[in-house]
Amino acid sequence: MNALSSPAPNSADPSGTSHEFVLTVVCAESPGIVHAISGAILEVDGDITESRQFVSSTTHRYYLRMQVRTPAAAQELKAALGPAVERFGLELQIDEVGRPVRTLILGSTTLHCVNDLLFRMESGHLPIEVPLILANHPTLEKLAGFYDVPFEHRPTRGEGAKAAFEDRVREAVEEHDIELVVLARYMQILSPELCAELAGRCINIHHSFLPGFKGANPYRQAHARGVKQIGATAHFVTTDLDEGPIIEQEVLRVDHTRSPEELMAIGQDAEIRTLRQAVAWFAQSRVLLDGSRTIVFR
Amino acid sequence: MNALSSPAPNSADPSGTSHEFVLTVVCAESPGIVHAISGAILEVDGDITESRQFVSSTTHRYYLRMQVRTPAAAQELKAALGPAVERFGLELQIDEVGRPVRTLILGSTTLHCVNDLLFRMESGHLPIEVPLILANHPTLEKLAGFYDVPFEHRPTRGEGAKAAFEDRVREAVEEHDIELVVLARYMQILSPELCAELAGRCINIHHSFLPGFKGANPYRQAHARGVKQIGATAHFVTTDLDEGPIIEQEVLRVDHTRSPEELMAIGQDAEIRTLRQAVAWFAQSRVLLDGSRTIVFR
Amino acid sequence: MNALSSPAPNSADPSGTSHEFVLTVVCAESPGIVHAISGAILEVDGDITESRQFVSSTTHRYYLRMQVRTPAAAQELKAALGPAVERFGLELQIDEVGRPVRTLILGSTTLHCVNDLLFRMESGHLPIEVPLILANHPTLEKLAGFYDVPFEHRPTRGEGAKAAFEDRVREAVEEHDIELVVLARYMQILSPELCAELAGRCINIHHSFLPGFKGANPYRQAHARGVKQIGATAHFVTTDLDEGPIIEQEVLRVDHTRSPEELMAIGQDAEIRTLRQAVAWFAQSRVLLDGSRTIVFR
Amino acid sequence: MNALSSPAPNSADPSGTSHEFVLTVVCAESPGIVHAISGAILEVDGDITESRQFVSSTTHRYYLRMQVRTPAAAQELKAALGPAVERFGLELQIDEVGRPVRTLILGSTTLHCVNDLLFRMESGHLPIEVPLILANHPTLEKLAGFYDVPFEHRPTRGEGAKAAFEDRVREAVEEHDIELVVLARYMQILSPELCAELAGRCINIHHSFLPGFKGANPYRQAHARGVKQIGATAHFVTTDLDEGPIIEQEVLRVDHTRSPEELMAIGQDAEIRTLRQAVAWFAQSRVLLDGSRTIVFR
Repeated sequence: MNALSSPAPNSADPSGTSHEFVLTVVCAESPGIVHAISGAILEVDGDITESRQFVSSTTHRYYLRMQVRTPAAAQELKAALGPAVERFGLELQIDEVGRPVRTLILGSTTLHCVNDLLFRMESGHLPIEVPLILANHPTLEKLAGFYDVPFEHRPTRGEGAKAAFEDRVREAVEEHDIELVVLARYMQILSPELCAELAGRCINIHHSFLPGFKGANPYRQAHARGVKQIGATAHFVTTDLDEGPIIEQEVLRVDHTRSPEELMAIGQDAEIRTLRQAVAWFAQSRVLLDGSRTIVFR
Repeated sequence: MNALSSPAPNSADPSGTSHEFVLTVVCAESPGIVHAISGAILEVDGDITESRQFVSSTTHRYYLRMQVRTPAAAQELKAALGPAVERFGLELQIDEVGRPVRTLILGSTTLHCVNDLLFRMESGHLPIEVPLILANHPTLEKLAGFYDVPFEHRPTRGEGAKAAFEDRVREAVEEHDIELVVLARYMQILSPELCAELAGRCINIHHSFLPGFKGANPYRQAHARGVKQIGATAHFVTTDLDEGPIIEQEVLRVDHTRSPEELMAIGQDAEIRTLRQAVAWFAQSRVLLDGSRTIVFR
Repeated sequence: MNALSSPAPNSADPSGTSHEFVLTVVCAESPGIVHAISGAILEVDGDITESRQFVSSTTHRYYLRMQVRTPAAAQELKAALGPAVERFGLELQIDEVGRPVRTLILGSTTLHCVNDLLFRMESGHLPIEVPLILANHPTLEKLAGFYDVPFEHRPTRGEGAKAAFEDRVREAVEEHDIELVVLARYMQILSPELCAELAGRCINIHHSFLPGFKGANPYRQAHARGVKQIGATAHFVTTDLDEGPIIEQEVLRVDHTRSPEELMAIGQDAEIRTLRQAVAWFAQSRVLLDGSRTIVFR
Repeated sequence: MNALSSPAPNSADPSGTSHEFVLTVVCAESPGIVHAISGAILEVDGDITESRQFVSSTTHRYYLRMQVRTPAAAQELKAALGPAVERFGLELQIDEVGRPVRTLILGSTTLHCVNDLLFRMESGHLPIEVPLILANHPTLEKLAGFYDVPFEHRPTRGEGAKAAFEDRVREAVEEHDIELVVLARYMQILSPELCAELAGRCINIHHSFLPGFKGANPYRQAHARGVKQIGATAHFVTTDLDEGPIIEQEVLRVDHTRSPEELMAIGQDAEIRTLRQAVAWFAQSRVLLDGSRTIVFR
C-alpha cells in the first residue's frame, strides 16, 4: 500500500520532533524476521506503538504491520531496514501515519457512496484526498462541486467510448500519482487489462445476499425468496467479476414487509458503510493480500 | 400451523376463566375480512390482544395473525368464525397461546442444535414438546436421556436403510401426531416424497455465506476467499435442496485469523441461534407461507 | 402524529384513482374497536393494506396503526370513522402515506446528523421537508445551502439570547406549521416551557453507554472503563434531561485500541443511524406514546 | 494469566516435536523490548505465529501477547527470556496454547450460563476444566452430574453461612490450584477481602442497559422506559460492585411488545454469550489488565 518510493517532502525533520510511520512487511515465513526489524527500529531510536502480524497457514507467508514513532526521517528508517529487506526478501512499505491516500473515484448515477466518502474525508475521519471523480454520467457533478473535488464526465456508451474512458483512467492514475481507485457504484465492468494494471489498488462494492443469487435483479430474487439479511461486500477488483479478495462485508436485517425497492435502499446503506470501512482500512495500510484473500489488521 | 381439528381437552372452560387463542388466517385479498373476523370475535366476547396482517404484493393473498382473549372455548370461537370462513374462503387455524407444539427431531452426530433446543424447552422458553428424537447415529442418546426425551437410533447406511428410516419418520409423525419436524443437523437429504408429505412443517438449518459457495467443504472455500461474515439459514424443507422458503437468518463476524475449523465452530453458533429462533416462531404460529417465501409476524 | 386537521389539497380525488392513508388510533382498551373501525373502512370501499396493534399491559391503552387504500378522500374516511371516534373516545390521526413531514432542525456546530438527514431527504428515502434549519453557530450554513434549505443563525450566548432563540423556535413552528422538531446535536438544554410545548413532537439524540456514565466527558469515562460497546439513543424531549421516551437505540463495538477521540467518532456514527431511524419512523406515523415509553410499529 | 510457575509435565519434549506457547508480557513502555524478546525466541529456534501488542496512552505501559512454536520446553524458553525479564522488568507469563484453565464455577439457582459453559467445554470449544461447581442452592446438581463435574451445595443463608461459603471458596481455590473463578449468576456479593484475593482472576456477568438503571428490578425499569437494546457485561470482580474492568459486552434488540419477563429471558441470552466469550478470551490469555480497564487481544 501507499509506497514511499522517494523521500516525502514532509519526512524531513528539521525541528527534531518525532514522526509516526506505518510499516507493512510481506515475506516468506522464516525465523528471525521480527528480531531483525525490531533491531533496525532500535537503531533509529524508534518506539513500536502498534504491531500486528499473521502467518498464513495457506501460503506460508508472513504479514506484519507496525506503527513506529521515531525522530528519524523515513529515508533513515528505510536505510536501517535495508539489511533485513535483503536478508529476508521483505516487501516493505513505509508511510507516514495519517497521510491522505491519493484516491480516484469512478462513479455513475448513484450518489450514496460518493456522498459518504466525501463527507468523511472533509470531516477528517477518512484519510484520503480525491484529485478527481470520473463518471460516465453527470449526476455526481453538483456533489463533487460542493466538496471542491474536480469532476469529469465521460460517457461509456458509443463505439470506442469505454476504451477511451479506461484510457482516461490510466492517464489520471499517472497524472495524479493515484494510489487507490474506488469503484463507487461505477456499474461498468473493467477490461481485464485495466483490472490487471490496478491489481491490489482498486476496490469495488456490490450487494451480497444469504444465500447468493446469480443473474439479473438480485433484489427481486431476494424478495421472492424472502431473505432476512441483506448485505454488501467490498473487494479488490480482479478479472473474475465480483470474485476478488474480500476486504469487508456487512449485513442488515430485513423482513417480509419490504418491497424490492426498499430492499435496495437498505442494501445501499450496507454498501455505504462497507465501502467506507474498506477504504479507511486500505488508507491506513491495514489491508494486505494473501493470495485470493485479504489480511485485515483492524 | 398447529391445527385444532378436534375439540382440545383443555379448551373447555368450566371455571369461567378466559383463554388466550392464536388465530392465523390466509385467504385471497378482499375487503371486509377484518370486519367479519372482528365481528365474530365480538360475538364470543373476545378481546384482540395482538394483531398483525400483511397483504402480499406478489401473490395478492392476505395473511393475519391475531391473539384473542375470550371466555369462550375454542369450538365456540371456531363456530362464530364459520360464516367468515365460508364467505372469504379462509384457511383458519386456532390454537391455545403457549401450547407446546409436538416436535420430532431428526439428528445425526452433532450435538449443538439439539442441546440448545432441549435446554430452552426445559427452561420454558421454547413452547415445544419432543416425544422422540430419531437419529442415524447413537451420539445424541446421552443428551436425550438427560432431558428424558425418548431416543431411537436407526442407521441410514446399507441397502434400504434410508427408506426404512423415512418410513419410521412417517410412522412416528402418525403415532405422536407430530406438528413439526426439525432437521437438527440431520445431514441426510430427504426423499422428494417425504419432503412433499412434510411440506410447511419441516424446518432445516444450514450454514450460509456472503457470497454463497457451491460444492463441498464450504468453510474451506470461505476461508480461501477470506469471508468476513458467516451465517446460517433456517428454512422450510422442499424438494429443492437448501432452497425452501427462508424463515430466519443470522450472521457473525469473522476475520483472517480463523482457521476453517474455527469458522465451522462459529458457523455452528449461528446455526444454534437461527434454528432456535425459527422453531420458536413456528411454535408461536408466527410463520406463514406466501408462495416461495415466508411471512414472519415477529 | 402528522395531524390532518383540514382537508389536504391533494386528498381530493377527481381522477377516481385511490389514495393510501395511514391511520393511528389511541384509546382505552375495549372490545369492538377493530370491528367498528374496519366497518367504517368498508363503508368507504377501503382495503386495509397494513395493520398493527398493541394493548399496553401497563396503561391498558389500545394502540393501532393501519394503512388503508381507498377511492375516498381523507374527509370522507374521517366522516365514516366519526361514530367510532365518538363511541370509543378514539384519538385519531389520518394522513397520506408518504407525505413529507414539516420538520424544523435545530443545530449547532456538528455536521454529521444534519448531513445524513438532508442527504436521505433529497434521495427520497426520508419523508420529511425542512423549511428551516435554525442554529446557534454558522457552521451548518454551507451544507444547508447545498440542499437549498433555508438557514438561520441566532447565537444563544449573551443575556436573553437563549430566550430569544426559543422564541424564534416558537415563531418558526407557527409560521411553517411544523410537525416535528429535531435536535440534531443542538447541544443546548431547552427550557421546561418549550419542552412542554413541543411534547411528543421533538426528538433529541445523545450518546449512550453500557453501563451509563453520569457527568462530564462520558467518552473519556468510557475509555477509562474500557467499554466494548458504545451507542446512541433517540428520544422524545421532556423536561427530564435525556430521560424522555426512547424511540430508537443502536450500539457499535469498540475495543481498547480506540482513543477517546475515536470513541467519539464511532459514537457519532451511531448517532447518525439512530436519529435517522427515529425520524423516519416518526414521519411514517410509526411512533406512539404509551406513558413514559414508545410503541414503535416498525 | 495461567502462570506456569513450575515445569509443566507435558512441556518436556522427548519426541522432538514442537510446542506452541502463549506468552504475555506487561511492563513499562521502553525501546528495545520486542528486539530483546524476539532475540530470546530466536535462541530457542522459535517461530512467532501470532503477535499483538499495545501501548497504553493512559498508563504508558506496554502489553504483548505472542504465540511461539518451538522445539524447546517451556523452561528453556523461560530461561532464554531471563535477561529480558530482568532488564525491562517484564511481568511474563508462559503457557501451552490450548491448555485447559482450571476453573471454579460459583452458581445459584439459574442454569443458563452454567449449561452453556459446560456444553462448550465438553464440545472442545472452550479450553477450561472445572474441578468443582460450588453453589448456594441445589439447582445445578443434575446438570453438573450430566457433565461429570463435581458439585457442592453450601447455603449462604443463616448466621456465618456466607463467611463459611467464602472460606470454602478459598479452600477450593487452593486445593484445585484454581486459575479462574467464574460467578455464573451466583447472585451474592463477595466480601471485599475475597474480591481482593481473587483480583484479576474472578469474572462476573450482569445485565446492562442503555441507559443504565440503578436500583431494584432493572428489567421492570427498562420496560417502563421502553428501551430498545438490552445487554450484558462480563467484568473482573473488584470491591466496587459491578464496576470492575469490563472484558466483554453484548446487546440484543427488543421492542415494546416484550414483557419484563421476556426482557429478562432475552437478557439471559446476552449473558450466556457474553460470559462465554469473556471466559474463552481469559482462558486463551487474551485479557490483560490496564488499570481500571482491560486490553483484549481478540
